[in-house]
Amino acid sequence: MLLHLSTWQEVEAYLQQSQGIIFPIGSTEQHGPTGLIGTDAICAESIARGVGEATQAIVAPTINVGMALHHTAFPGTISLRPSTMIQVVKEYVTCLTKAGFTKFYFINGHGGNMATLKAAFSETYADLVDLQIPNADKVKCKLGNWFMCSTVYNLAKELYGNQEGSHATPSEVALTQYIYPESIKQAELSEEVASGHKIYGAADFRKQYPDGRMGSNPDLATPEHGKQFYDAAVKELSNDYLRFLSEE
Amino acid sequence: MLLHLSTWQEVEAYLQQSQGIIFPIGSTEQHGPTGLIGTDAICAESIARGVGEATQAIVAPTINVGMALHHTAFPGTISLRPSTMIQVVKEYVTCLTKAGFTKFYFINGHGGNMATLKAAFSETYADLVDLQIPNADKVKCKLGNWFMCSTVYNLAKELYGNQEGSHATPSEVALTQYIYPESIKQAELSEEVASGHKIYGAADFRKQYPDGRMGSNPDLATPEHGKQFYDAAVKELSNDYLRFLSEE
Amino acid sequence: MLLHLSTWQEVEAYLQQSQGIIFPIGSTEQHGPTGLIGTDAICAESIARGVGEATQAIVAPTINVGMALHHTAFPGTISLRPSTMIQVVKEYVTCLTKAGFTKFYFINGHGGNMATLKAAFSETYADLVDLQIPNADKVKCKLGNWFMCSTVYNLAKELYGNQEGSHATPSEVALTQYIYPESIKQAELSEEVASGHKIYGAADFRKQYPDGRMGSNPDLATPEHGKQFYDAAVKELSNDYLRFLSEE
Amino acid sequence: MLLHLSTWQEVEAYLQQSQGIIFPIGSTEQHGPTGLIGTDAICAESIARGVGEATQAIVAPTINVGMALHHTAFPGTISLRPSTMIQVVKEYVTCLTKAGFTKFYFINGHGGNMATLKAAFSETYADLVDLQIPNADKVKCKLGNWFMCSTVYNLAKELYGNQEGSHATPSEVALTQYIYPESIKQAELSEEVASGHKIYGAADFRKQYPDGRMGSNPDLATPEHGKQFYDAAVKELSNDYLRFLSEE
Amino acid sequence: MLLHLSTWQEVEAYLQQSQGIIFPIGSTEQHGPTGLIGTDAICAESIARGVGEATQAIVAPTINVGMALHHTAFPGTISLRPSTMIQVVKEYVTCLTKAGFTKFYFINGHGGNMATLKAAFSETYADLVDLQIPNADKVKCKLGNWFMCSTVYNLAKELYGNQEGSHATPSEVALTQYIYPESIKQAELSEEVASGHKIYGAADFRKQYPDGRMGSNPDLATPEHGKQFYDAAVKELSNDYLRFLSEE
Amino acid sequence: MLLHLSTWQEVEAYLQQSQGIIFPIGSTEQHGPTGLIGTDAICAESIARGVGEATQAIVAPTINVGMALHHTAFPGTISLRPSTMIQVVKEYVTCLTKAGFTKFYFINGHGGNMATLKAAFSETYADLVDLQIPNADKVKCKLGNWFMCSTVYNLAKELYGNQEGSHATPSEVALTQYIYPESIKQAELSEEVASGHKIYGAADFRKQYPDGRMGSNPDLATPEHGKQFYDAAVKELSNDYLRFLSEE
Repeated sequence: MLLHLSTWQEVEAYLQQSQGIIFPIGSTEQHGPTGLIGTDAICAESIARGVGEATQAIVAPTINVGMALHHTAFPGTISLRPSTMIQVVKEYVTCLTKAGFTKFYFINGHGGNMATLKAAFSETYADLVDLQIPNADKVKCKLGNWFMCSTVYNLAKELYGNQEGSHATPSEVALTQYIYPESIKQAELSEEVASGHKIYGAADFRKQYPDGRMGSNPDLATPEHGKQFYDAAVKELSNDYLRFLSEE
Repeated sequence: MLLHLSTWQEVEAYLQQSQGIIFPIGSTEQHGPTGLIGTDAICAESIARGVGEATQAIVAPTINVGMALHHTAFPGTISLRPSTMIQVVKEYVTCLTKAGFTKFYFINGHGGNMATLKAAFSETYADLVDLQIPNADKVKCKLGNWFMCSTVYNLAKELYGNQEGSHATPSEVALTQYIYPESIKQAELSEEVASGHKIYGAADFRKQYPDGRMGSNPDLATPEHGKQFYDAAVKELSNDYLRFLSEE
Repeated sequence: MLLHLSTWQEVEAYLQQSQGIIFPIGSTEQHGPTGLIGTDAICAESIARGVGEATQAIVAPTINVGMALHHTAFPGTISLRPSTMIQVVKEYVTCLTKAGFTKFYFINGHGGNMATLKAAFSETYADLVDLQIPNADKVKCKLGNWFMCSTVYNLAKELYGNQEGSHATPSEVALTQYIYPESIKQAELSEEVASGHKIYGAADFRKQYPDGRMGSNPDLATPEHGKQFYDAAVKELSNDYLRFLSEE
Repeated sequence: MLLHLSTWQEVEAYLQQSQGIIFPIGSTEQHGPTGLIGTDAICAESIARGVGEATQAIVAPTINVGMALHHTAFPGTISLRPSTMIQVVKEYVTCLTKAGFTKFYFINGHGGNMATLKAAFSETYADLVDLQIPNADKVKCKLGNWFMCSTVYNLAKELYGNQEGSHATPSEVALTQYIYPESIKQAELSEEVASGHKIYGAADFRKQYPDGRMGSNPDLATPEHGKQFYDAAVKELSNDYLRFLSEE
Repeated sequence: MLLHLSTWQEVEAYLQQSQGIIFPIGSTEQHGPTGLIGTDAICAESIARGVGEATQAIVAPTINVGMALHHTAFPGTISLRPSTMIQVVKEYVTCLTKAGFTKFYFINGHGGNMATLKAAFSETYADLVDLQIPNADKVKCKLGNWFMCSTVYNLAKELYGNQEGSHATPSEVALTQYIYPESIKQAELSEEVASGHKIYGAADFRKQYPDGRMGSNPDLATPEHGKQFYDAAVKELSNDYLRFLSEE
Repeated sequence: MLLHLSTWQEVEAYLQQSQGIIFPIGSTEQHGPTGLIGTDAICAESIARGVGEATQAIVAPTINVGMALHHTAFPGTISLRPSTMIQVVKEYVTCLTKAGFTKFYFINGHGGNMATLKAAFSETYADLVDLQIPNADKVKCKLGNWFMCSTVYNLAKELYGNQEGSHATPSEVALTQYIYPESIKQAELSEEVASGHKIYGAADFRKQYPDGRMGSNPDLATPEHGKQFYDAAVKELSNDYLRFLSEE
């Protein structure tokens, strides 16, 4: 059930049965010469919809811009500053808490969102109590990073070994190829790819990682792999979501 | 050309030819018993993509949550507070201005976004200058409200007369039916529909407009109408976008 | 009844009879070679006091700095950023709501304030509810733009035709001449006057409108016209205020 | 020279001779049973205009709402929160610094503004440097509290002894009587008046000072005293302003 | 009793007897060629602990960075902007108010903190009420500036006359020598020392006060003096704290 | 070299040799019935000073209040909200970057700080560039969590097995016992200790972890263990700091 394709009365009915909601969250950022700028949002959204179907959960509209400040030296990247993203997450959760939701499950496609999301969750709990929303004390937010699912991780290792890298990875590229086969990109990839540098500011990032990849070889990706990643992630996160729902 | 389906190098190439970008902006809010919660985002996104194709413009990911505080007494509505939305718009525009974009065209599907967007544009211009971004003085933002296109307005008048109303209108519902024919909703609509009340806070809004419609009869909508609205809006906004690009 | 010339006990007594208050809001910004920098505040304040007398309403101190970022390339202009102005309006309304006021009528002299004020009203309603102020749900804010009164508009058309323009207009200059006859300014006005350019940032505005006027010929203004505008605006806005008071 | 009664070209000419500007700042707050809610703004504004005339300085529009949170339990009081007031002051000074002003002299009528103004000045200096405004390093803000002028203080002591008190004082009431003789208020004042309590929150303030006065007997005020205070303050602050201008 | 050396259960027990807490607040800023950068924090912390012992009060961790923007042109200085410091103080007080504390006594070592702290107190009272914390109306914050104690002031006058100056003073240096005898610094101090300049921005401050001292001769300081200052301040502030506790 | 025990001229000299600085950051939060509220700050501070000595690095004053919102249902806990802590970190780093520092190493004693610190680093890099500080692009911040050092982790495992738990752990308690042997606390600890619950809001945390411990048995701690942890952490973090300094 997709929130944006529902009516408010359908949401009202849903709330009688469940107080859980799934938020896909991605990023709009460079993913190397062959990765789509929307990779993280596309992955998060498709998996979130899969989890929604598997668990009868409602899925909110995708948060398609996240915390990607370190990628902003590459054109096309859009980022929120962490404090703005915290504010955005708080307002989304607050609106829905007032409506009766209490379990917020964020299916995340971007490592760079994790710290800010965790900070946002902490601040949200405190603010909801300050606003004296009746069910504030019951609100729980949880982060489900599809790329950190053990089944996904193992599959990537098996398929790509250490050519998986950590940004513009073949696994995420494969998933976008599965979802958007008409948007598979071709570009000459240098065999040498930078890796192992810590992430600091945007200019430094581009200097260290000149084509945007971090140790990855996205040429290995195929749409078929994408389907495998999709299936693995949907299954593992569906279970995780159901466990989350069942927590008191 | 869709930003999320492009690579950063494609964006780099695009910037050689054009510094314009189109932002679809909608809302996630109740649209009466038969209107989709994502109506405004769906309309803005589909028209923006049409305009993008017609004008060879790049289209950014959809801003699917806007300023809908007055709808928040209906479950499923999500809203940013105006000052947060101003901040979000500023950060989006700032990232892209640094990359070389200067013409930002917002195709908007929600009347409630207009005031905040205009305020955001003013604040953005000032902040970009304060940040001393080289091309700050060239940055221009423009609002294209599809529902205020004269061809759209006249078509709605012709098809629905004063049953068009001003929220959960048959024209916007028709457009979503054209885009998502599988999500056409059925519900009993009272013949009487509230209208003419000013918009204040959320509780007052729900009291005045108990089913969420404002003077509209969305039962009149058909997918075929939707296509007509789509075509009219794409044509009119494409022309407007091209004029905007040609402004010095 | 002017708030600043009242005692707190007089306000307490007033609240027994009415919960309405009028806020004049203007701007401190260039108005061309012969227009006063305080034009918008002067107009709003004088009309608000007229409305206050006509309707027995209390009139708050004038908000004399508004949203004029696009005029800041001309010396003497002072502006708030929209998000600051939103905060200011929220705090004014919150203080008075706690004291028992519920109907806030803003008599506005500056087109550039409109978007930010509307955004401020939306945010105010939401914040008052979050603060759990007892009568929060009753609070209503309304914008009365004197220059958009139909009687004012028609009079300006009749007196000046399209030489009214849209900034540093003869109608507003006339009104300041009526209020401050000792401050009527003389300056050579070029016969050609820029018009029709959209408003973007401050540098662009000054480039497009080098002497600050937008399509207007303020030489046509006279103090006598000013009285006519004053009378028309006071009458029309008084009626509007009374209607606003009578809304449930 | 009053900014609001000037044109931008007159300001441009003024800046050739002086980079100083005077800001009257008051408050909108209860002043006991016979003191006007606008007392602090009225005093600051009238004295500022006197100083402006005496020194050929330009006088900005009055900041008529200040930091009066502790008075907000009395109806009619309006206050900014300190952090909002800091932001407002910063934006005023920033606009004018960009235009060429560098010496900002705040003639203040309200003790409660002092801490926040000083904090605002500190933050303003830092922000102007961060914005890299060319003359940022020359900007100086100075606070001139009329009620703390030694001549004013001595006169109040001579006329009223310890019945001067510290809020709703006969000296400030006298000054408003001189400016607005038609608004002299009559009310029964209890002979006993609270004094000596520290200022904390609004509810506590009202409990400690039930009629709003702090140790004062405003019945002693006369318009003639008011003129004396006015003359003394204008003279002393004019000298102070000129000294300030002459600082390198 | 030091908060950081206590357990939460000891705090719980303490709250049965007292709702007071002492916050040492200093600064991290240049103190001339021989003064420690931590001078203000060291003085505040040591005296606060002395007061804590003398009065059985709990002492919170030291706020060791304050409002020192005007010192930031000297390396090693760290400052909060006033609006950030207001926010920090509010959050500290809010946490502890929720736990049951109501009397917050700030022992301050830095003149530059005073304005911002006072502003913070005002904003805190208002925010606590808005958050509807049960005992919000009882919360009181008080500022105890050790360097303004009359006994301290008189002792400094007696020992140093006008060589006390107003920054990097022998009295504060003496106190740090008493606390950290192993960190007594030696440096050539010019006999001439700047004094009498007002404080504006950081660059101006360094220009006016090139070695960081303001009219002081810290060469006069001795650890023995330091002990005298310590004893005087602890005694006077202990009495002040007890009076504060006994206020209703 | 401790910043607070240095003069500004010593800092100036230091900057000729190194642009690195170490920030200890802890928290002020409950640590179970026998853990000190200052545990995290004490551990971070002592280790940071050890690292400073071992590497000739300057050590800034300890940030003794961190992000501990989830502990605020226990009296004595003080927390910043994440967005405030981000602001604080930004301002600290900005001051010191302007002075010439470029490598900021945060020795952290509290897991709850990690997400917010990472978010703060990202926002800091972006803001420094926006402020156009000359060496902004060179600024790097790094997080050194003493409790995650492999040597520390292995030692804890060896000494305590799974009685180490994850809050109020014997390892951190041991370290505070080593630093403050006079503050070793005794209290009856239940043999059963809650563990395995996720962390959400403050009320939920206290409900899940009623005495504040998370799966730990701090009774196992001894001052001697504390010394071992101290030595291990100082050694490992000193190496890490030196590697960080040597990064280009």
